[in-house]
Amino acid sequence: MRRRSFIKTAVAGAAVMTLPGWGGQMYAATASTPYMKPASGEDAFHLGMAGYTFVHFNLETTLATMKRLNVHYLCIKDFHLPLDSNAAQIAAFHAKLAEYGVKGYAVGPIYMKSKEAVDQAFEYAKRVGVDLLVGVPNYELLPYVETKVKQYDIRLAIHLHGPDMPLYPDATDIWNNVKDMDPRMGMCLDIGHDLRKGSDPLVDLKRYSSRVFDIHLKDVTDCTKAGHAIELGRGRIDFPRFVKTLRKVGYAGSCSLEYEKDMKDPFMGIAESVGYFRAVCDTTRK
Amino acid sequence: MRRRSFIKTAVAGAAVMTLPGWGGQMYAATASTPYMKPASGEDAFHLGMAGYTFVHFNLETTLATMKRLNVHYLCIKDFHLPLDSNAAQIAAFHAKLAEYGVKGYAVGPIYMKSKEAVDQAFEYAKRVGVDLLVGVPNYELLPYVETKVKQYDIRLAIHLHGPDMPLYPDATDIWNNVKDMDPRMGMCLDIGHDLRKGSDPLVDLKRYSSRVFDIHLKDVTDCTKAGHAIELGRGRIDFPRFVKTLRKVGYAGSCSLEYEKDMKDPFMGIAESVGYFRAVCDTTRK
Repeated sequence: MRRRSFIKTAVAGAAVMTLPGWGGQMYAATASTPYMKPASGEDAFHLGMAGYTFVHFNLETTLATMKRLNVHYLCIKDFHLPLDSNAAQIAAFHAKLAEYGVKGYAVGPIYMKSKEAVDQAFEYAKRVGVDLLVGVPNYELLPYVETKVKQYDIRLAIHLHGPDMPLYPDATDIWNNVKDMDPRMGMCLDIGHDLRKGSDPLVDLKRYSSRVFDIHLKDVTDCTKAGHAIELGRGRIDFPRFVKTLRKVGYAGSCSLEYEKDMKDPFMGIAESVGYFRAVCDTTRK
Repeated sequence: MRRRSFIKTAVAGAAVMTLPGWGGQMYAATASTPYMKPASGEDAFHLGMAGYTFVHFNLETTLATMKRLNVHYLCIKDFHLPLDSNAAQIAAFHAKLAEYGVKGYAVGPIYMKSKEAVDQAFEYAKRVGVDLLVGVPNYELLPYVETKVKQYDIRLAIHLHGPDMPLYPDATDIWNNVKDMDPRMGMCLDIGHDLRKGSDPLVDLKRYSSRVFDIHLKDVTDCTKAGHAIELGRGRIDFPRFVKTLRKVGYAGSCSLEYEKDMKDPFMGIAESVGYFRAVCDTTRK
């Protein structure tokens, strides 16, 4: 609730903010107009963007793209807002986001290979004003990270990266590492990388839902390391079942598109993926 | 069947043609991999593009966009292939389409205000080698057009244009004009313009299905003349119900996206709309 009300008050008056929720439903239906879409309840989860999708683009292009697509939640990457940003820079950053109707709902992923990096990441998240840090701390740093989670009351969502790197290959690995720690230690479930590791991201979503704080939305071509990113709906993920599972477990965070195909010209692929996800939500909602 | 087999034989060997149907399903599921999408039957209808979507772009840009989106059916507009094209020009045009895995399944819309224009349109359709002509003949020319339909065995799909012009405002108007004529006299059901006229395009699809030979796929913001084009899913059309109705009536033609928003920079909107339509098809197919 806190996040939604931020959006609605912080940029009140902007036309885009008259849209309910993530903007998929712009027009209400009435009983007398049977061709209109039925009014539909808003989902607890929302569509967002992983900042990494725009690694080759500046903040303005990122925000203009999001505005055009009616996407209002951004996970902030350090190439758009450096880790050493001061208060004035952060304020200017938030003001720029608000111009486009966007909220920075989290920061990361941030890799943490030392205690100093952990300190820096949590201080950064605090200065940015988010309560969610997507991060990849070395395994041996987890007890130290836990003290920071308690100290700052900032949730940690550990990002899994499939078979590409030894750190946190899948959701089960993260679960096993955090399940006995503070309940604010959880994961950013990257459904594509989880699948590339040979895990079932939909089973993992259900099994580990109490620790799923963020989701990277993507599709991939195969359930092996050879699988690569592709537009949503063209790969192996069963999105209707995924969305139904989101509702079933009561997921209330962001499904943030991390689109890693054609990264130097990703706009059509991003748009196709956004359209695909929205239609799955619309079609399964009734 | 004729059209599908054309695609599969005409450009055999092109990688894109290994995709089944309109390319929404690239990977088959197996019982042992529960996260994969279930294998799904192919629909009788297919996604296409109305050439008018690309009124500001040349043929190469049109085809590159379609290839990127895995869309394989184009309704040919005269700005891409002029009405006076000769056999060599038409052959070169088809060869260019085949390079991109695209079939020109129909021509039009073509306005016909005189018998000479009717003659020219049918001769053109015959030279192009299609069996479907999307056209707008003046009302008084309909008996003459009917003789041409019989003579050439080419179906006429009359395009409706909502409240913007007096000719054929909605599906009912076309039906009333052709229902007692040759069964090859029918309509291109523009679901957006039909709605803007205050008609219900889904009711009309069901009611007039025997004469619906082509469909212009679009979404609009309102059911009045003030309604304007918008990305699929953001307007008033109920696409899940639309797709279910397509299946119910056994529609086996093209749903051709006529995207009329941001026409000088339509690519993201086209992609979002394609993604939306595919997801509705995928999600309602099970």
